Amino acid sequence: MSWKDYLTERQSAHLEDFRTFLSIPSISAQPAHRDDVRQAAEWLAARFKQAGFLQAEVLPSAGHPVVLAEYCPYPDKPTVLFYGHYDVQPADNPERWNSPPFEPTVVDGRIVARGASDMKGQVMAFLLAAEALIASGQLQLNVKALIEGEEEISSPSLPAFIEQHKERLRCDMIINGDSGQLSETVPLLGLGVRGICGLEFDLTGPGHDLHSGTWGGQVQNPLHAMAELIASLHNPDGSVAVKGFYDDVEPLSPELRAWYQKIPWNEEEMRQKLGVSEFYGEAGYGPWERTTGRPTLEVNGMWGGYTGPGGMTVIPSTAHAKITCRLVPNQDPDKIVSLVKAHLETHLPIGVRLTVRVKESGARAFRMRADHPGCVAAREVLAELYGVPPVETMFGGSVPILGTLKQMLGHDPVSFGFGLEDELIHSPNEFFRLSSFEKGKRGYAMLLTRLAH
Amino acid sequence: MSWKDYLTERQSAHLEDFRTFLSIPSISAQPAHRDDVRQAAEWLAARFKQAGFLQAEVLPSAGHPVVLAEYCPYPDKPTVLFYGHYDVQPADNPERWNSPPFEPTVVDGRIVARGASDMKGQVMAFLLAAEALIASGQLQLNVKALIEGEEEISSPSLPAFIEQHKERLRCDMIINGDSGQLSETVPLLGLGVRGICGLEFDLTGPGHDLHSGTWGGQVQNPLHAMAELIASLHNPDGSVAVKGFYDDVEPLSPELRAWYQKIPWNEEEMRQKLGVSEFYGEAGYGPWERTTGRPTLEVNGMWGGYTGPGGMTVIPSTAHAKITCRLVPNQDPDKIVSLVKAHLETHLPIGVRLTVRVKESGARAFRMRADHPGCVAAREVLAELYGVPPVETMFGGSVPILGTLKQMLGHDPVSFGFGLEDELIHSPNEFFRLSSFEKGKRGYAMLLTRLAH
Repeated sequence: MSWKDYLTERQSAHLEDFRTFLSIPSISAQPAHRDDVRQAAEWLAARFKQAGFLQAEVLPSAGHPVVLAEYCPYPDKPTVLFYGHYDVQPADNPERWNSPPFEPTVVDGRIVARGASDMKGQVMAFLLAAEALIASGQLQLNVKALIEGEEEISSPSLPAFIEQHKERLRCDMIINGDSGQLSETVPLLGLGVRGICGLEFDLTGPGHDLHSGTWGGQVQNPLHAMAELIASLHNPDGSVAVKGFYDDVEPLSPELRAWYQKIPWNEEEMRQKLGVSEFYGEAGYGPWERTTGRPTLEVNGMWGGYTGPGGMTVIPSTAHAKITCRLVPNQDPDKIVSLVKAHLETHLPIGVRLTVRVKESGARAFRMRADHPGCVAAREVLAELYGVPPVETMFGGSVPILGTLKQMLGHDPVSFGFGLEDELIHSPNEFFRLSSFEKGKRGYAMLLTRLAH
Repeated sequence: MSWKDYLTERQSAHLEDFRTFLSIPSISAQPAHRDDVRQAAEWLAARFKQAGFLQAEVLPSAGHPVVLAEYCPYPDKPTVLFYGHYDVQPADNPERWNSPPFEPTVVDGRIVARGASDMKGQVMAFLLAAEALIASGQLQLNVKALIEGEEEISSPSLPAFIEQHKERLRCDMIINGDSGQLSETVPLLGLGVRGICGLEFDLTGPGHDLHSGTWGGQVQNPLHAMAELIASLHNPDGSVAVKGFYDDVEPLSPELRAWYQKIPWNEEEMRQKLGVSEFYGEAGYGPWERTTGRPTLEVNGMWGGYTGPGGMTVIPSTAHAKITCRLVPNQDPDKIVSLVKAHLETHLPIGVRLTVRVKESGARAFRMRADHPGCVAAREVLAELYGVPPVETMFGGSVPILGTLKQMLGHDPVSFGFGLEDELIHSPNEFFRLSSFEKGKRGYAMLLTRLAH
């Protein structure tokens, strides 16, 4: 039986496996879900074994465990290492989900669940592709799968884990599955991601909450100070106002700007997809340049005072914000965090104190050569799978592990995944298209086949 | 037995009654506490009966019920109406309380519980004063007590209630117990309060939360827009930047400014009490002028995005804020709300939509004449009770019902209460001094005695 027939025959059983995987709330950011994270790892390792991998283990790290699966029967053939993660984002605000985030629900050819697109769907697609190739005797190279449980919290434990298991992770090529395509009909070859760094801070005014009638007018309100401080972080032209923020950023070359011009962008279609009245960003740059070629500073959360139903006339003691920056090549995460911290300190309004907590794990931006052998193979497979050649671009998000994998294992990871950008990752009602799930299984099988020759 | 001996003899039993009253979580703002609010009303009405009031009922209103108690045996003598409220502010963030908010705890001569100072302590003090006078045959005028359950949500149902029971509420003088003294040793005669109006608003950017890596740089972040908009509401000199906000405000007269100068203000002591590094407010005005003579605009709550533990790289779909303004004479609450709304509309940043919800019940500022017979009596009683004459001032907070009582029942309410401004009302660890509780009982008994002659 060919691997294609194998996949076709087992299609509904494989969908059930996917649902089972999705039903485990492996939220790495929330300590209450620690056991769920481990349960997902154990389920996944067992499923790799069942798929025919010769070894599949749940290995400890300093944080959440790592799944390492190996199918390496050929001492003289090349080895491909697949990178993915089995952890998912939080699913707060369950009232904003149309179905419970961990009860996978199929609606209109889409499976709705937290982690469906980011990225349990792609992990399952890879696993099933390998299973089909093994079962049909067509897996003609060595395969390793490294599936971590801390990607959504910036992979704090993975570098030490890789260092510890360096020998066992040795390979000739790396595939990064945490990636996507442009649309259901147009493939995408990703050639880079932005870096990231972040911090949280508190502003403290009075020693305790005050009555806003009794004290309003005579005491700095930390919420007013927070608004002023956050507003100071951007210029009216949409650029970041932090001193030195752009110092290490190389101007986009004319060649790169010309390359960006070729990536499709349907303004009206995207506007409707995202539900925005208009787009907004740094003046002088196009949409793809803004999201992948230029650095940004975004507030991800801001809060203080009374936020419940009704009113409460309070001047709160504290106000809080969480910030992340996306970085482009040459920007150093630690340096950027220091610059933002310095901006907060120098722009601090009167009457409040500042406390900053820097997030430990930043990551540099990552870019790879378009003529890398992995990119060449991916380009050919995608063209065959979709019937059109892939659009080649970079991503605005960050996959901090790419730089780590490159640095520690010596290869540029090739991004090859099947998420689509409207799939509400990190939001309520995240979903994955069943068509993408099918394409993913076939795509990974084709890529592994091509890389064997 | 004199009323003084009566109070002394029953001191510990009366404290137990106070604790029982405090243990009922009568939070009017939160629907989950609806039954608790009613329970507090029923307990209070029964306690008025027990105190010797000839009638005491829990009467329905459009919202939470009202307690109406009457001791009116003298057809030819004057009638005093006491106004108070039995509802309390929310007690969110229980982790910030040193003891549970509805388990009254006595520490160092203070009783700690939500509502202790605002204002169950004063309601109990008045009730017990009347009880002592009745028991000792020394209550020589008619007394009515109107204790509502919606003061902390701006008394939306009370005007209609008063209209409905106008005849029964007829009186010759009104005492407002929702008031305070300057310190443990210096009394205060309140001659006015600020008015209030408020609104909530939402900013909506994208139709759903977006990944801040994928879309950061190309989409307006509602949190950035919120910061910009909130920051635009104040000028660098601390004044309110809303166009027309000060149009109807009369400049403080030289006489009033001279009068304000006489009110004690110990900057260092107050700085330490409030835990602020420095005071901040509208340039050109003193502390009492800022908090009672000038209008303000305060954000009471502001929130959006991810606020949980760890990080979540999101551009949220929405951001939210709650605002209240404090008003001085001549400012119309509806007009001010309209001006703030217009400011939000005209200063709305690009890429977000605005939704405003105006709070229904605003209130005008209230001021009364220093030579009103009730003020004269209160001044004399306070001087006797404290051994020094009262400081005469106004309050920064709002008691919207004062204007309503005046308008509907035809008398200026005399403010006569025993809260102190450091008692953490509307904050965690609210408390009431037991010494104030004792002074309150004696003070109300002395005032009722004086008004009978």
